[in-house]
Formats: sequence, C-alpha cells, structure tokens
Amino acid sequence: MEKKITVLPGDGIGPEVVASAVRVLQVIGKRFNHTFHLGYATIGGAAIDQHNNPLPDETIELCESSDAILLGAVGGPKWDNNPPELRPEKGLLRIRKHFDLFANLRPVKAFPSLLEASPLKREVAENVDLMIVRELTGGVYFGEPRMRTENGAIDTTVYSTAEVERIVENAFELARLRGGKLCSVDKANVLETSRLWREVVEAKKKEYPDVQVEHNLVDSVAMKLITNPGHYDVVVTENMFGDILSDEASVITGSLGVLPSASIRGDNFGLYEPVHGSAPEIAGQGVANPAATILSVAMMLQYSFGLKEEAAEIERAVSAVFDDGYFTADLARDGGRILSTNEWTDKVINEIDTSF
Amino acid sequence: MEKKITVLPGDGIGPEVVASAVRVLQVIGKRFNHTFHLGYATIGGAAIDQHNNPLPDETIELCESSDAILLGAVGGPKWDNNPPELRPEKGLLRIRKHFDLFANLRPVKAFPSLLEASPLKREVAENVDLMIVRELTGGVYFGEPRMRTENGAIDTTVYSTAEVERIVENAFELARLRGGKLCSVDKANVLETSRLWREVVEAKKKEYPDVQVEHNLVDSVAMKLITNPGHYDVVVTENMFGDILSDEASVITGSLGVLPSASIRGDNFGLYEPVHGSAPEIAGQGVANPAATILSVAMMLQYSFGLKEEAAEIERAVSAVFDDGYFTADLARDGGRILSTNEWTDKVINEIDTSF
Ligand SMILES: CC(C)[C@H](C(=O)O)[C@@H](O)C(=O)O
Ligand SMILES: CC(C)[C@H](C(=O)O)[C@@H](O)C(=O)O
Repeated sequence: MEKKITVLPGDGIGPEVVASAVRVLQVIGKRFNHTFHLGYATIGGAAIDQHNNPLPDETIELCESSDAILLGAVGGPKWDNNPPELRPEKGLLRIRKHFDLFANLRPVKAFPSLLEASPLKREVAENVDLMIVRELTGGVYFGEPRMRTENGAIDTTVYSTAEVERIVENAFELARLRGGKLCSVDKANVLETSRLWREVVEAKKKEYPDVQVEHNLVDSVAMKLITNPGHYDVVVTENMFGDILSDEASVITGSLGVLPSASIRGDNFGLYEPVHGSAPEIAGQGVANPAATILSVAMMLQYSFGLKEEAAEIERAVSAVFDDGYFTADLARDGGRILSTNEWTDKVINEIDTSF
Repeated sequence: MEKKITVLPGDGIGPEVVASAVRVLQVIGKRFNHTFHLGYATIGGAAIDQHNNPLPDETIELCESSDAILLGAVGGPKWDNNPPELRPEKGLLRIRKHFDLFANLRPVKAFPSLLEASPLKREVAENVDLMIVRELTGGVYFGEPRMRTENGAIDTTVYSTAEVERIVENAFELARLRGGKLCSVDKANVLETSRLWREVVEAKKKEYPDVQVEHNLVDSVAMKLITNPGHYDVVVTENMFGDILSDEASVITGSLGVLPSASIRGDNFGLYEPVHGSAPEIAGQGVANPAATILSVAMMLQYSFGLKEEAAEIERAVSAVFDDGYFTADLARDGGRILSTNEWTDKVINEIDTSF
C-alpha cells in the first residue's frame, strides 16, 4: 500500500512526539511492505510565527493532497494573549471544519501496568474499554449568532437533522464493531437540540437491532463515567458535551500521555493527534511521552487505511514496553525505568522488529 | 427567631427524606429557641397528579409568603413520557426562575467515614472541601430562541453582564469566607459568553484583593476535579457547565446521598434540596438516606437565617452518627450497622439532644 500523510508537528512537545510516531510508522511500513510519503507543514503557534495565520493556505493544500494528517499539538503561553483569530487553537478548529471532520473518536482503555497512576481505585478503572464519539463540527462551536450584544453576549447551539444523523450513524457502526452497546448523551429535559438528538437516535436504532441503546443525561454521565466507567462501550454526544466528557474520561486510566484520538469524516480521510496538549513547560527536553502520538498512528492505520493488523501490532508493542517496565518521566513509578522520548521509542521499535 | 418555611416533599423518596429533615429542624428549633412554621405544598409529579401543573399557583403563593423553601425531589417514570410542559423537572426550572434563585451552591466535603465508598483513591479524595457555585437562572436553560427549525433545532446561550456580575460577586464573597481561592470556569477559547464571563471576573477581582483567582477551561476542570479535587475551594461557572461539573464533583466523596444544595438570590430567601434525585425504585420502603436533606436544612439555617451555630450543630451530629458506624442501606459497609430512614434520623436527633 502507498499513502501520503501530511505531518503537522505544531507547538511545544508536538515536534518531539511526532518525530517518534513517524519513526514507528516507517518501521511498520518496512515490516508490512507499505510506503508512506510524508509532507510537513505548519499549524498553530508555529504557523502564526511563520505565516501570521494559524492554518496557512499551504497547509490546507498539502492536507488536501494527502490521505491522512498526523498532528502533534498546538498552543503555548507565547500566543495566549493574541486576538481570537490569531490563536493556535483557531488552526485546530478551522482544520476540523475545513475538512468536515465531524467525528472525533476518543478511545479510553486501561493499560494494566499504568493503572496505579489512576486517581480511581483499581477495581473501578481496570475493565475500562470505551470510546467517546464526539460530534466535532457543529453545535455551539460554530453556531451563529455568536457575539456581544448591547448588554451581554450570546452563543448559539445549532444542529441540523443531517448533522446529527451522520454522527449517530457513525457511532452505531462503531458500536456494532465493538461491544454492541451505545450510550447517547444529551440534555433532553432542557434543550431543543437534545430532543432532536434523541429522536434521531431513536429512529436510527431500528436499523441496528444488534446494538443495545440507552439515552442518558449529560449530568448523569458525568457521574457514572467516574463511578462505573466499565459500564460504557460507545458513548456518542454533541460537540460541547463531548469536549467535557472526553476530557473527563481521559483521566480514568491514569495517563493522559497515552491517549490517542482520530477526527474523521464519511470517507477514509482523517486527522490523528494525541489527546494531551503541547506541554510547553517540558518542550525541547526530550522527555515527552510519545505513546499517545504513536497510538494515534495506529488509529490512522486502522481507520484511514484499513490496516488492522498493523494497528494491532503498534498497540501490542506499546503495551509490551509498559509491561517490561519502561516509562517516560510522566509515568515514573517504583520499579519502573525512566527513559527519554527517543529511548522509549527505540523500545517500541525493537519490540516491533523482533517480533517478525 | 421565628421563620416560615414552605415544605415541598415532591416525588419518590422526597416525602420520606423531607419528613426526617423536618424532625431535625424542629429539634434544632427547640434546642436553640426558634419557632419554625411549616406550610406544605406540591411540586413536580405530585403537583401534576393533583393540579395538572408541575408548579401550581398555590405553591408559588405559599412560597412567596415564606422565608425559605425545603424541597425533597421531583420526577419518576410515571411522568417520563409527558410533554415538556407537564414534566416534573419543569416545576424545578420554573420555581428557580420565578424566585430568581440565581446562585446554586453545591458544597462537596469528604466525611472520613464514608470515603471507602468513593470511586477515587483515599489520598485523592480525603482533603476535598470545595463549593461549586453554579449560575442557575440564565444561559442556555432559558435563552431564546430555543426551537425546532426547518431542518434541525437551535438553543441559545444568553448572558447579560449584570447576570454574570451578580453570580461572580456571590462567588467572591463565598471565597472570602472560605479558603480565599476562586476558580472561574469557562470556555473562553470558543464562546463569546465565556469571554464576557472572564472579563467580568477580571474586573471584579480588583475589589477582592484577598481572593486568589484562576481562570480555567471547562474541559480542563472536568479532568482536574478527578485528578486533584483537593486543589479547589470555590468554583464558579455558568448554568450548563455548572450542571455537569457539580454532578461530576458529587461522586468524589463516595456518596451522593449526603450532599446538600442551596439555590439562593440576593436577599436571604432560598430553596434547599438534596443533590440526589427522587429514587423511585426505593420510594416508600423507609430505607432512603435522609442525610442530604438534613444537611440542606443546615444550609438553610446558615444562608437564609444566618444561624451558623445551629447549622454547625446539624453537621456535627450527622458526622458523629457516621463516625459511630450507623448508615442507611445505600452506604452499607463492613462493620457498619444499617438503619432505616427513621432510625438513622433518631440517631441524629439523639446526638443533638444529648449534647445540651
Ligand atoms: C482547543 C479547543 C478549542 C479544543 C476544543 O474544545 O475542541 C480542545 O479542547 C479539544 O478538545 O480538542
Ligand atoms: C432536572 C434538571 C432540569 C436539573 C438541571 O439541569 O438543572 C437538574 O439536573 C439539576 O441539576 O438540578
């Protein structure tokens, strides 16, 4: 297989973790006989510095000619006081919208050797294996009007039936391939958009008799994600609730540093990035944890290229390195050995190489 | 002191836990020489059944002639398929709005003898003592337009500067009386209403040089409430974020069944209710946990009547009963004795009586 990938290292630790993930990607290519062509471009703060634009046209063009995008992270204190249009995260919001990447997939799965870092008790966190499916291009993030008024401000949550249908369908498909359970999250006792959401789920579920569906209110899910996260398989929700719940869910397993994400649309095109941020305070020191970005490459292989075996191999290798007791500094623990970003990546690569 | 209180038992376990709380209130009255006049009225499902209205006029009138309101809980499967205007929670939303109860106070404090029921590790949960201040009468809960459109639906988040100012001021005052720390939660990187919110907090903080202020994004707070809840003192946020975060925070300490809440306005009038719901599945069995409602009475004494010593006495008594190893069924644990709602309430009352 031959694929073109646009690499957007971004800011902070972005370039370091992306470099690790690219090394792993190339090793997978060699082992499984695929060719990955990489093109690099800027986004976020780096793009503001070079082009005065968090998402320059040349970046969009390069992405348009690719099969998938690998992103590091954006943001940092340097740009915190910029006007809204010149802030790093605007690049992220715009790339999602431009490419219509409406489905944000955030898997949360417990690595047994990381569980001790979880704020939750082991018995609560150990069987967690869920996927949050967040609608990413609608709702209050993009709804108009959004503005200051004479005596205050307003924002607008907007959803079309079609927008809800496509994300809900996506979630049903994922549930079918996973544990067969779907939890749809809304605030139907208060919001019109939530009542629409619930109706769409009710209508769609007739096409998926094999999927078990429940509706739950966002406040109740915010509780249950902590008291009983093992209950969930696929969780689908709108943009703003998804932002909050997926970040909440990211703490269950004890390390934000290992969580990947995918932002996809109807075809196979997608953007893959770690859940963690740009961590400017440790940038450039070679100590960042590349696991989340490496696992984001695994998601790319699976969701954009349909390469399941290759994706599974990366996941196996990452898990094996943790089980062998090797960690980056963020996961420091008794009996574990602390490696640099590059050393830890070497371990993953060795694990892949030696398993021929 | 002489006060009039409207009691709204509501649905499910509401009548049982309210009966317990009223007994405790009367004992406090006797001991400290206050007279509490109680008037009963309906709300929620009970009001729909009797008056075809989740908040009947006679209930509003009785509340208007009172100094405070004690509410049990509303809702149940019986009314789940009613149209929106005839649903129990509509009574709750309308009473908040009618009485302009704009500040919802939700304290979360660890009871050492309950911590083992927490999903969090003991060391994470044990020092928690925070208060979420949620704006309760604005934002997307009441903003217009909220409706179906030709091809979808919309909701509107609206805040006036004055609405933000009064809740922020309230939170600053509380922070000053508590630990002197205020965390303001918004999504200023996306929402106009959040940028307004942040500006108001920035302006107000000049009047409170003794309060240490931080701004934090809602997604980030959703994580940190679980990884480091001990960090927080007063947390202030808008209606929808507050709904989610206050419920999330309610699981930290291991029992929703002990968390009280207050919904107040500028003067001393307020509505007090347990955080937990109507739990229809255990209603009428005499096994419900009355602690949250009893502690809501303590909040009433403190916030509406300025009776600090009386409030502290209730809190002390509840804590002592837990420490003595007496629990209701929801808190069953090794070495604990399970009591009925009434027996457990007797223990609290004895604790208050014997400490003369
Ligand atoms: C940076 C911000 C705009 C963004 C969002 O809210 O979507 C981030 O929190 C995320 O979840 O990717
Ligand atoms: C019942 C519902 C409308 C209500 C709310 O969302 O405010 C409830 O969740 C609460 O927090 O009191």
